[in-house]
Amino acid sequence: MRQNLQNTMALLVRYPAALNALLRGLPGAWIQANEGNETWTAFDVVGHLVHLERGHWIQRVEQVALNDGEPQTLEPVDRFAQMRGNEGKTLEELLDEFIRLRAANLATLEGLKLREEDFARQGRHPALGVVTLSELLATWVGHDLTHLHQLSRILAGLYREAAGPWREYLGVLKCAGHGS
Amino acid sequence: MRQNLQNTMALLVRYPAALNALLRGLPGAWIQANEGNETWTAFDVVGHLVHLERGHWIQRVEQVALNDGEPQTLEPVDRFAQMRGNEGKTLEELLDEFIRLRAANLATLEGLKLREEDFARQGRHPALGVVTLSELLATWVGHDLTHLHQLSRILAGLYREAAGPWREYLGVLKCAGHGS
Repeated sequence: MRQNLQNTMALLVRYPAALNALLRGLPGAWIQANEGNETWTAFDVVGHLVHLERGHWIQRVEQVALNDGEPQTLEPVDRFAQMRGNEGKTLEELLDEFIRLRAANLATLEGLKLREEDFARQGRHPALGVVTLSELLATWVGHDLTHLHQLSRILAGLYREAAGPWREYLGVLKCAGHGS
Repeated sequence: MRQNLQNTMALLVRYPAALNALLRGLPGAWIQANEGNETWTAFDVVGHLVHLERGHWIQRVEQVALNDGEPQTLEPVDRFAQMRGNEGKTLEELLDEFIRLRAANLATLEGLKLREEDFARQGRHPALGVVTLSELLATWVGHDLTHLHQLSRILAGLYREAAGPWREYLGVLKCAGHGS
């Protein structure tokens, strides 16, 4: 399916509420579990989402959407910056911030009043080359879903042993992780 | 981590609200997409969850929890029965039913007033052999999370092409599916 702004926004607007319903108030055992070594906890995942919601997605969208000339180079993402900006916050504070930032960003996106022809506007990704506004918007959704996929796997991992022989039937426990 | 009833219930109680926040009112393109061939749509996944919530999880829990003798053989699951029971329903009706059934089942679970020693009670799974109540409860959670993992993958798949070169960075698109 092609990226479609109405479908894109329909998922982007629901996602923070879904995370909030899943995670808010969960016992610390779930929130602090990771997948071993330096992997992320649910808390880290939410922090990462807040970070990109604060200073990445909408800025990139505006950079590409407002450029009607040659593709400009997109700013790289600092994936670990949330380790600094979110220090000392609770999960609930991060969820509140994610909900607030996402709503503001979608209001900004609506305010751009994008037309069909705008979706072909281009930027230059440092590693991937020329990309379009449409691809950027689809990636915003795909990034949300990648982290929901990761979250379900982090949480399920905590009960891997507890499920006993049934773990063979739980597909989420067979996911090899593929980055985040 | 060992299965812990408080942690188990904390996830089981939040899950229907999370699905509801993610899926209710989403455009049909998201709800009707599958992963090719005979794979499930988001609608099918919710139907499956409703089916097991109606006639599987709490019945199995009671069968094992109330048995203080030799392990009894557990009833097998008819994984495709929801194709019959959910015909003609909307996604919103299924979500309502899931929320209602889950709440009722958790009330039943609480009413069992399980003590630590009850978690070792046993049943005999037709394929897996002897299993415990604790393993069954952990599997209920793992099953929820397996289908959240699957849902995130089904939805992301719809934007695989739309994300253009960025799809290489989206971990959810690299998940090979591993059953459900």
